[in-house]
Amino acid sequence: MRILVINPNTSDGITATIVAAARSAAPHAEILGAHPSRGVTSVESHTEEAWATIGVLEQIELAESGESSPDAYVIACFGDTGVAAAREAASVPVVGITEAAVFTAVTLAHRFAIITMPPRTIAQSDRVVEALGIAHRCTVRAVDVAVAEVEEGSAHLIDAFIGEAQLAILEDGAEAIILGCAGLADLVEPLSGRLGVPVIDGVAAAVAFAAGLAAQGLMTSRRGAYGVVGSAPSAAELLR
Amino acid sequence: MRILVINPNTSDGITATIVAAARSAAPHAEILGAHPSRGVTSVESHTEEAWATIGVLEQIELAESGESSPDAYVIACFGDTGVAAAREAASVPVVGITEAAVFTAVTLAHRFAIITMPPRTIAQSDRVVEALGIAHRCTVRAVDVAVAEVEEGSAHLIDAFIGEAQLAILEDGAEAIILGCAGLADLVEPLSGRLGVPVIDGVAAAVAFAAGLAAQGLMTSRRGAYGVVGSAPSAAELLR
Amino acid sequence: MRILVINPNTSDGITATIVAAARSAAPHAEILGAHPSRGVTSVESHTEEAWATIGVLEQIELAESGESSPDAYVIACFGDTGVAAAREAASVPVVGITEAAVFTAVTLAHRFAIITMPPRTIAQSDRVVEALGIAHRCTVRAVDVAVAEVEEGSAHLIDAFIGEAQLAILEDGAEAIILGCAGLADLVEPLSGRLGVPVIDGVAAAVAFAAGLAAQGLMTSRRGAYGVVGSAPSAAELLR
Amino acid sequence: MRILVINPNTSDGITATIVAAARSAAPHAEILGAHPSRGVTSVESHTEEAWATIGVLEQIELAESGESSPDAYVIACFGDTGVAAAREAASVPVVGITEAAVFTAVTLAHRFAIITMPPRTIAQSDRVVEALGIAHRCTVRAVDVAVAEVEEGSAHLIDAFIGEAQLAILEDGAEAIILGCAGLADLVEPLSGRLGVPVIDGVAAAVAFAAGLAAQGLMTSRRGAYGVVGSAPSAAELLR
Amino acid sequence: MRILVINPNTSDGITATIVAAARSAAPHAEILGAHPSRGVTSVESHTEEAWATIGVLEQIELAESGESSPDAYVIACFGDTGVAAAREAASVPVVGITEAAVFTAVTLAHRFAIITMPPRTIAQSDRVVEALGIAHRCTVRAVDVAVAEVEEGSAHLIDAFIGEAQLAILEDGAEAIILGCAGLADLVEPLSGRLGVPVIDGVAAAVAFAAGLAAQGLMTSRRGAYGVVGSAPSAAELLR
Amino acid sequence: MRILVINPNTSDGITATIVAAARSAAPHAEILGAHPSRGVTSVESHTEEAWATIGVLEQIELAESGESSPDAYVIACFGDTGVAAAREAASVPVVGITEAAVFTAVTLAHRFAIITMPPRTIAQSDRVVEALGIAHRCTVRAVDVAVAEVEEGSAHLIDAFIGEAQLAILEDGAEAIILGCAGLADLVEPLSGRLGVPVIDGVAAAVAFAAGLAAQGLMTSRRGAYGVVGSAPSAAELLR
Repeated sequence: MRILVINPNTSDGITATIVAAARSAAPHAEILGAHPSRGVTSVESHTEEAWATIGVLEQIELAESGESSPDAYVIACFGDTGVAAAREAASVPVVGITEAAVFTAVTLAHRFAIITMPPRTIAQSDRVVEALGIAHRCTVRAVDVAVAEVEEGSAHLIDAFIGEAQLAILEDGAEAIILGCAGLADLVEPLSGRLGVPVIDGVAAAVAFAAGLAAQGLMTSRRGAYGVVGSAPSAAELLR
Repeated sequence: MRILVINPNTSDGITATIVAAARSAAPHAEILGAHPSRGVTSVESHTEEAWATIGVLEQIELAESGESSPDAYVIACFGDTGVAAAREAASVPVVGITEAAVFTAVTLAHRFAIITMPPRTIAQSDRVVEALGIAHRCTVRAVDVAVAEVEEGSAHLIDAFIGEAQLAILEDGAEAIILGCAGLADLVEPLSGRLGVPVIDGVAAAVAFAAGLAAQGLMTSRRGAYGVVGSAPSAAELLR
Repeated sequence: MRILVINPNTSDGITATIVAAARSAAPHAEILGAHPSRGVTSVESHTEEAWATIGVLEQIELAESGESSPDAYVIACFGDTGVAAAREAASVPVVGITEAAVFTAVTLAHRFAIITMPPRTIAQSDRVVEALGIAHRCTVRAVDVAVAEVEEGSAHLIDAFIGEAQLAILEDGAEAIILGCAGLADLVEPLSGRLGVPVIDGVAAAVAFAAGLAAQGLMTSRRGAYGVVGSAPSAAELLR
Repeated sequence: MRILVINPNTSDGITATIVAAARSAAPHAEILGAHPSRGVTSVESHTEEAWATIGVLEQIELAESGESSPDAYVIACFGDTGVAAAREAASVPVVGITEAAVFTAVTLAHRFAIITMPPRTIAQSDRVVEALGIAHRCTVRAVDVAVAEVEEGSAHLIDAFIGEAQLAILEDGAEAIILGCAGLADLVEPLSGRLGVPVIDGVAAAVAFAAGLAAQGLMTSRRGAYGVVGSAPSAAELLR
Repeated sequence: MRILVINPNTSDGITATIVAAARSAAPHAEILGAHPSRGVTSVESHTEEAWATIGVLEQIELAESGESSPDAYVIACFGDTGVAAAREAASVPVVGITEAAVFTAVTLAHRFAIITMPPRTIAQSDRVVEALGIAHRCTVRAVDVAVAEVEEGSAHLIDAFIGEAQLAILEDGAEAIILGCAGLADLVEPLSGRLGVPVIDGVAAAVAFAAGLAAQGLMTSRRGAYGVVGSAPSAAELLR
Repeated sequence: MRILVINPNTSDGITATIVAAARSAAPHAEILGAHPSRGVTSVESHTEEAWATIGVLEQIELAESGESSPDAYVIACFGDTGVAAAREAASVPVVGITEAAVFTAVTLAHRFAIITMPPRTIAQSDRVVEALGIAHRCTVRAVDVAVAEVEEGSAHLIDAFIGEAQLAILEDGAEAIILGCAGLADLVEPLSGRLGVPVIDGVAAAVAFAAGLAAQGLMTSRRGAYGVVGSAPSAAELLR
């Protein structure tokens, strides 16, 4: 089984961290990583999401046209940027890290919290929370850190996450914490140890979920929302 | 007052219809129309929405850099494609035709229905309905017609819309009907006459709303979700 | 175009403030103001709302029977007191200031807050928030000030509003603030300046919206909820 | 224990039917009936609700000022017209027939339906359903009959109710039926017999509930929404 | 009229407190108390709920087979443990104390709070709140006290409840307080006196409600969710 | 990796079908099956759920005390009977087939439907749908077939499922179908072929999800809702 994890920003460093996190969660799958050939260095604004979506489509086109196309895709950006479009373009299932992290939290805890970064991306998390209808059990909080700060690892962010997670536990009754950004896998163990509650990395959750979809032989429905891509030209050509 | 109405698809015909509809709803404003220089001929899939969003950003960049930039923008695509990104890129308010049509229906009727086209775009309408939280009063239905069929006018679609609207009235208790596609302004009068309920065109609703925002001197909040565009390169350059 | 703004309480001072706020938001419309001939000096309780609703109906009857009846009505009381009844009685569209303020906030911000006064009127704001389904994006807060204190202007209330608005921004993630009372237009500029987020006056929002409805030639649906007034006697006669 | 059942319309016949229904549901309480001295013959529109609310307040003022004021009030109009204002004006608890009918259905069935009359009053039922948050279990349907037709009894309406109730059972999965109008107590037994599911009369449900509140010695909260009536003049004086 | 109040835990002390509270709320009914012959000393975990449900069924089987079976049952455990199963097993209506407390609060206050104990049972309260759809008006809080501490009375818990209730009033806008555990009836008067808002005991609320259902002659619907018990063996036999 | 799939009813035949379905979805895991030593032959009523929950706990106690305890549990009963209690009793994650089927549908389709059996179990599906908050995308339908009919395989049920699924597709806009009962794996391929949309078996979905949780090394949160089991005696002892 082969899973392609697409990082919608153009950072090699974050892509490498993501792929490493992915590998530990799907020991029986071959994990490949990719990022757009051109685009944005981090995905925080809706405008950056527009670029990132084109980049995700480019990487799916590339993977689909290759000899050994994957059995499932994971889109590794909190807010699940480009996932709906990817479902149309891909011939196999597509999983977003936000939705997968929420599914995982639901099975481990009654109430839980997403801690995203930076604060302006709360809207992107809210968007997924509303699409899933889980707001009655999931609060969204943020630490004031730019995604770029994760490029070289996330260990230096632990105190900021501890602080916000403790507020989530005390004020929101959170019983588990979702890390609201790809590239934070390094924080799972230390945070979980210090907080005493499960800490969920969306990349690991999504890769595990995608492996499960592929094992079941399921495919995105072509009836309705995720039918064919329509009149859209090739994304790869656009980004050339 | 100057309002730029951006049609996210590349059809000259639909853009002309949209601009005409817009003019009648804001008699004291100068209405300008635009469409992306490159992109998709209709916006029905999520992939087409990705392209259309880049196209919307291109047109906003162009308008903002001109001598006489507008006082407000209207994005004329059902599903409000690209509206969030447009709010970041624009220096003045941005209104989507779906949200504006819903606001309008709320003030005229207790329950109402969107009739969109084709059926696969129900997901895009649902997305706006959920973001607004109005599902308890608004049902979403569809007629099985491609957007391209509107290029030359919409008069031939009246029977399809009558049929679905009557179902909405009888089964959903709809007291008003929202036309779920830009470029259907021709249907407002005949449909309203035959159905005996208000029929709302999102383009007219959005232009009227945008004029009101501009008159109040209000601006998109820069705190939180709609802050600056971030690291995204110029869309115009991409589409060149 | 002529818009009649009805202040449901009997205060001349507040009516004058409201009319002034209305004028700036609809420069091309003739703005008229009115208040009930008899009733309550402020609308804070549900009992006062009962009186105010009769008063709103009285003013609509009066306006409809005149030679130059308006093209739209605005009901200028937070909580949208009497709006549903007004829709039945009026031959043209009716807009409430609460609903219009919410529509406006939705297009400028992802999350926002209403700051109403006094605290007991939170229920009235909640009523509109629930009717619109917007609770997932809108919190309701209150300052402990009686409506009567606005009679001579609202400048002295700025610190109270600043305090509560800052809590809304920090704790609720509000990106825009709605002033939860008619007659607070004086606060828009200073509050917006000090908070750094859009501040919305419902009167201005509603007048702009009403002008837009009138420009579109739309009418309240007579099918269903807002049909004819039924067996109710004249309100004017009652208040005589 | 003394319970005053207020019929918000001015019909002696319907008041008598309501009082009879009330008596059977609270065998240990003294049931008194009242209706406004002036107002509307039926409450179907929002405008009629405005009048009915004043009438409810009039009757509460009258009862409160008497020697033997009641221990609880029931407001016998579907849509719970005037209940919030009545809570302010009354010194003892106030129960609406719609809310009480819903509470009752919740304890007898998983999903259930309100069948109201005429169709335009669906909005009034929806208002209570939304205030209670029970839309996920309760659908609202209507038969096309005017309230006035109940004046002389409701036996002739049984086929209309059977028809709509069967649709509710088959299409909505309703396991119990709420009669959506006061004055339909005659229908409870025959409908229940023919449908094979519980049929709930709001008047009986509300009187039973009000008796329970009085037995517990509970009072409407004076903190927040239902504080004192404020500046409102006497309703009795208005209707004189 | 005879009402059997079943305490799902095996504590004689708590059962006695519950029966006493029940008696004062239904002066015209004969109140009987019961608890499982075997089971758990308190119901705080979902596992304890599993046992308690079997115990509730055992007591209903016992009561139904006796000569003088009751006219209604009350299940006296916050979270309404076993109520759905009890509705299948019983030949007369069954009321949970949580649902009844919420109905009561709804008629006395706009917003209100449950204060349960210990914190882990928040999930059980949330379950009822979601089933009723009342989360928009009801917050759930907890004091960190084990149910066992109530065995000898609850007077020593008053300060803990005062503290949390005041937070509910100030931060959540609660206008009434629901005591989130059976066996706390002693707290109603002192808490209500000190807080100045209604304080609701679920046992009293449920007994009053059950008496009302019995007076109306209503029965649990046998269509759908609460049909016959199916293939389940006798619970009494299991617990022997 | 070892996953124990617990069938909460006592049927050997259904347990065997379930284990077979489970094996295909987690090719790298050892799948074990179990059912209660005593209990009910099918789980359709809430009373049967009470028994089934005790049976699930019995099997977890047994597995936990063995030498080779599993890495995750799947509870294979639609409605996720006993899952919350199982989370307390188990030292490793527990997944319900209903929740897992919903997660799976969410990633493959915008709107989807559960088709459960028999109709009375709609309440159990609704319970999970509400706990997950997914009612805006998921409808619940039923075929009128008893669970016992699945004992010998499900091929004879295909026409009943086709009929209801087609209604879901046409009337609800369903783009994928969830089989609302364990033991229906045989229907996945023929149904999917004839309907042209993904058909999801909860057992396969849950086993795949459980394998993913185990691979991530995650554990049920012990803070809050799923803390220790408390005072409950051994379930195994009860069922002896």
